[in-house]
Amino acid sequence: MNGADVLCDVLLANDVTVCFANPGTSEMHFVAALDRKPEMRCVLGLFEGVVTGAADGYARMTDRPAATLLHTGPGLANGLANMHNARRALSPMINIVGDHASYHLPLDAPLTSDIEGLATPMSNWVGRVKGPADIAPAAEAAFRASLAPPGVATLILPADAAWGEVGAVSVGKVRLAPPPAIDMDVVRKIAAAIRAAPGRVGMVVRGKAARADALAIAGQISTASDVRLFSDVLIARMQRGRGRVAPTRIPYPVDAATAVLRDIDVLILVGGKEPVAFFAYPGKPGRLVREGCQVLALAAHGDDLHAALEALRDELGIKPTQQQVFATAFPDEGTPTGRLTEDAIALSVARKLPVDAIVCDEAVTSARRFFALSAFAAPHDYMMGTGGSIGGGIPMATGAAIACPERKVINLEADGSGMYTVQGLWTQAREKLDVVTIVFANRTYAILHGEMKNVGVNAIGENARRMLDLDHPSLDWVSLAKGMGVEAARADTCERFDALLDSALSRRGPFLIEAVL
Amino acid sequence: MNGADVLCDVLLANDVTVCFANPGTSEMHFVAALDRKPEMRCVLGLFEGVVTGAADGYARMTDRPAATLLHTGPGLANGLANMHNARRALSPMINIVGDHASYHLPLDAPLTSDIEGLATPMSNWVGRVKGPADIAPAAEAAFRASLAPPGVATLILPADAAWGEVGAVSVGKVRLAPPPAIDMDVVRKIAAAIRAAPGRVGMVVRGKAARADALAIAGQISTASDVRLFSDVLIARMQRGRGRVAPTRIPYPVDAATAVLRDIDVLILVGGKEPVAFFAYPGKPGRLVREGCQVLALAAHGDDLHAALEALRDELGIKPTQQQVFATAFPDEGTPTGRLTEDAIALSVARKLPVDAIVCDEAVTSARRFFALSAFAAPHDYMMGTGGSIGGGIPMATGAAIACPERKVINLEADGSGMYTVQGLWTQAREKLDVVTIVFANRTYAILHGEMKNVGVNAIGENARRMLDLDHPSLDWVSLAKGMGVEAARADTCERFDALLDSALSRRGPFLIEAVL
Repeated sequence: MNGADVLCDVLLANDVTVCFANPGTSEMHFVAALDRKPEMRCVLGLFEGVVTGAADGYARMTDRPAATLLHTGPGLANGLANMHNARRALSPMINIVGDHASYHLPLDAPLTSDIEGLATPMSNWVGRVKGPADIAPAAEAAFRASLAPPGVATLILPADAAWGEVGAVSVGKVRLAPPPAIDMDVVRKIAAAIRAAPGRVGMVVRGKAARADALAIAGQISTASDVRLFSDVLIARMQRGRGRVAPTRIPYPVDAATAVLRDIDVLILVGGKEPVAFFAYPGKPGRLVREGCQVLALAAHGDDLHAALEALRDELGIKPTQQQVFATAFPDEGTPTGRLTEDAIALSVARKLPVDAIVCDEAVTSARRFFALSAFAAPHDYMMGTGGSIGGGIPMATGAAIACPERKVINLEADGSGMYTVQGLWTQAREKLDVVTIVFANRTYAILHGEMKNVGVNAIGENARRMLDLDHPSLDWVSLAKGMGVEAARADTCERFDALLDSALSRRGPFLIEAVL
Repeated sequence: MNGADVLCDVLLANDVTVCFANPGTSEMHFVAALDRKPEMRCVLGLFEGVVTGAADGYARMTDRPAATLLHTGPGLANGLANMHNARRALSPMINIVGDHASYHLPLDAPLTSDIEGLATPMSNWVGRVKGPADIAPAAEAAFRASLAPPGVATLILPADAAWGEVGAVSVGKVRLAPPPAIDMDVVRKIAAAIRAAPGRVGMVVRGKAARADALAIAGQISTASDVRLFSDVLIARMQRGRGRVAPTRIPYPVDAATAVLRDIDVLILVGGKEPVAFFAYPGKPGRLVREGCQVLALAAHGDDLHAALEALRDELGIKPTQQQVFATAFPDEGTPTGRLTEDAIALSVARKLPVDAIVCDEAVTSARRFFALSAFAAPHDYMMGTGGSIGGGIPMATGAAIACPERKVINLEADGSGMYTVQGLWTQAREKLDVVTIVFANRTYAILHGEMKNVGVNAIGENARRMLDLDHPSLDWVSLAKGMGVEAARADTCERFDALLDSALSRRGPFLIEAVL
C-alpha cells in the first residue's frame, strides 16, 4: 500500500466517511486511493469554497469532521473564506491539501506556494506529512486536532508522501481526550453572582449549549433565577421552534445591541467569548456590555457545556422538573397577499417549515424577521455563516443535506451572497440533495446601503451605486439554477411564492425559488 | 479630507484609474471617497476572484496596475488564487484590503483574521496603513512596489485610517527607479557562449521580451546565430500571429519537454527563471534541461529586456536589418465539417481571429492546437493563466476588455475551469465588454484523466469518475450565461460553430458559445 492508502484507512477507521473534493494533479494518488475505498463518499464541488463550506455544514449537523480534498495553495486559498466561517463556528474539519513532491519544491514550479502560510490564519491546526512513514501519525494528529476541541485541521500532503510505498500499517481508532471536568469553584462563583443581581443577569449560549436539551436546562435557570438568555448575532447552530427555549439574538446594529444589554450587570458565557460589535464605527463602542458589567465564563469551547449547565442549575437549587416558559403560537396575523415582501417570505417559511427541517440562513438583511418567527415554527435546526465570510449559505446547505439525507434543508439565501459560491447548486443536483433554496432577489447589497448611511452618506453617486447594486443586468436565478441542473421558478407575489414553496416542500430533490423583491 | 480621499488621490495622481471592487462594510469610507472621484472607473465583481483576475488581465494589457478593493481577510482570501496567477505573470497590481478599525482588532470580532498572513504568500509586497497621516506614503509605497519591478502589492487599510481626518495633503507622481543598466559583461559572456555552441543554444523569452518588437530582435538573433527560441508552457502575454516571430512553447508533459530541450547545451533566459516541470512524477526529472546544460540569464524581471536583446544582437555583430524567418500561411487543410471537435474549433478561431484581438486561453487540454495555429493568424495578443490557479480565464478576459475597449477579446475557456469564477460573465454584461467566450464543453476535468494515466491508473472506478467528470447533470452554459445577462448559444457541429463565431465577431458586446464536444 502507499501513503495515500494509509491516509484513507486512518480516516475510515475513525468514521470520517465523507470527502468533499476538488482534486488536481498533485492529488492523483490520493484520488486513486479513494477510488479503492467505495465506503468513502466522495462529493465533488466545482469550486473549493463549495467544498469547505459543505464540510462546515456537514460538521455542524453531525459534530464530526468530513475530509476535504484541495489542490495545492490556490485550491486551499479558494476554500479559506468558508474555513474562516467554520473556524468561527468551531466546526470540526480535516482539510487535505495536496502539494508538490517535497523534492520538487526547491524548483519553485509555477504552482508552488507557501501552503502553511495560507492555511494558518484559517486553521486551528496545520501539519505537513514528512514522508510515507509519517502519514499515519500525521493523519491521526489531524483527526485529533479536528475534534479535541473541535476545529479546523489542515494537513498538507506532498505528492511523494502519497505515492510512497509503505509496509502494512495497522490503523485504529484515535483516542480522544475527554472534556475537562466541571470546575465547581467557577460554578459556585457564578451561582453567587446570579443570586446577587436578580433580574440583571444574562447568559450567552453557544455550541452544544444551543441544542434543545441544553437549552431546556438554560430555560429552567432562566425561569427560576430570572436570567435572560442570549445568542450571538451569528449562530453556528441552534435548535429552535415550538417547545424549545428561544434565546434573544443580540442585534447586529451596535446601538440596538448595547440597548439590549444595557441592564445586564453579569453576563455569563457558555461556550464562547464575550459578544462584541461586528464592526467598529466612529464614536460607537466595540464592547457591547455596559461599563462595569461582570463577564464570567461558565464553560469554554471544548468543555461539556450540557454538564456545566446542569451543574449550575443544581448549584442554584433548581429542580430538573422546573418548567421553562416559551411562546407557543404564531403572532396573530393574516396570510400576506399581493406583492411579495421579505417579511411575507419569512412568515410563509416559518409557518410551512417541516418538522426537523434544517434552515441555513444567509439572507443577511432580507430574512431578519425569520429568526424571531422561527421560535413558533416546527422544531428545526437553524444555522448561519458565523465568521462574516460571504458565500457560506449554498455550500452549508449542501453539506447539511449530505449529513442528514432524511431531513429537508431550507436555504434562505441573498442574491448577493449566493453568487459567491453559486457552483454549489450543481453539487446539490449531482447528489440529488433535498434542499430548497429561496433567493431573496432584492438586486442589491442591501446591507452595504445601510452601512453607507451608518458612515454618514445619505445620497450616493454613480460609483457607489455601481458597487452596491446588482442591477443592469439583474441576475436571473431561474436560469442560473437551470444551468446547473436544479429546477427553479420565480415568484413576485405572495400567492405564487406560497404555491411554489408548497410544491417544493412536497417533493424531494433540489429546488430553487427566486423570490423577486 | 479623510484618509480614504488621500488614497484615491494618490492612485489617480499616478494614473491608476480603474478599481475592480467587491466592497464590504469596513471599506464604506473608501467607497464614499471613490464616489467623490468620478474619474476613477469602479468595476464591480460579484466574487473576489473576478476582481483580482480582472486586475491581472488589465495589467497584462496596459503594463500598469489597477487597484482592487477587497473586504477584509475572507475577501482577500477569495482573491488569492488569481493573485497567485498575477504574481507568476509578474503583473503590477495594487490590492486595497479593508480591515477593522485598528482599535477594534484586539476584540477579535468574527470577521477578524490575519490579513498579512493571508496576503504574504501571494504578494510581492505587503503593507498596512498605520493611520490617516501614513496613508499617502503607504499608498505611494504600494504603487512603487507594484511597478519597480512589477508585481502584486497588497495594502491593508484599517477603517479608522480611512475615516480619519487629515489636513490638506498634496500628492504627486511617484518617481520610479529606472531599470538597471545592461550588464555588458553578461552580454559578452552570453555572446561567447552562443558562438561556442552553434545550433545548440536555446533562448526562453518572457515578459516584455515576448512583445512583437523584442521578438523581432530575438528572431534576428535566432536566424543569424542559430539560436532556438522558446516560451514557457504557461504564457503571461505574447504578441503573436502573421509577421511575428513565433517561439516554440515548451510542452507540458515532462517527456515531451525534455525531448524538446535535449540538444540544448546553452539555455539563455530573458526575463525569467529556468523552466522546470510543472509537476513531479515518480521517476521523472524536475529540471527539463539536460544534465550539464549551461543556463545563463541575459536579463532578469525588472530589467529592460528589449535593450538587453538589442545589446546581445549588437554584440553578436548582427545588423538591425537582419531578417527573421517565419511561416506565413495556415497549414493547407480544408474547413472541418460535421461533429464539432477541439481541433476544429482551434482552426476556426485561428482563421477568423480579428486583427489585434486579445486571446485569453484557459481551455487547458482543449485548445492545445490553437497555440500552434495562432502563429499564422492575424496579429494578436495571447495570454494564459500563469500560476496554475484555475479560474483565471473569464476574469482575465474581463480585465483585458476594460483595458482595451477597442479590441476584440476571445476567451478560450474550459467548462471545468470556467466554473471557478463564472461570476465574471455578469461583469462583462454590466460593463458591456466586447468578449466572446468559447466554452469547450467536454464535461470532464480532461487533464486529470490524463494525470490518472500518468500515475499508472488506467481503469477508474466510481469514486474517481465522480471526482473527474462534470456530468450528471451536465452544465448548461447557455442558461448560465443567460442568468448573468450574457447572450449565448450552443454548437455541436462545425457549421453551427462557425456561424455562431461569425455572428459573435461581427457584433459588439459579450457573447458566449457553448461548444459541445
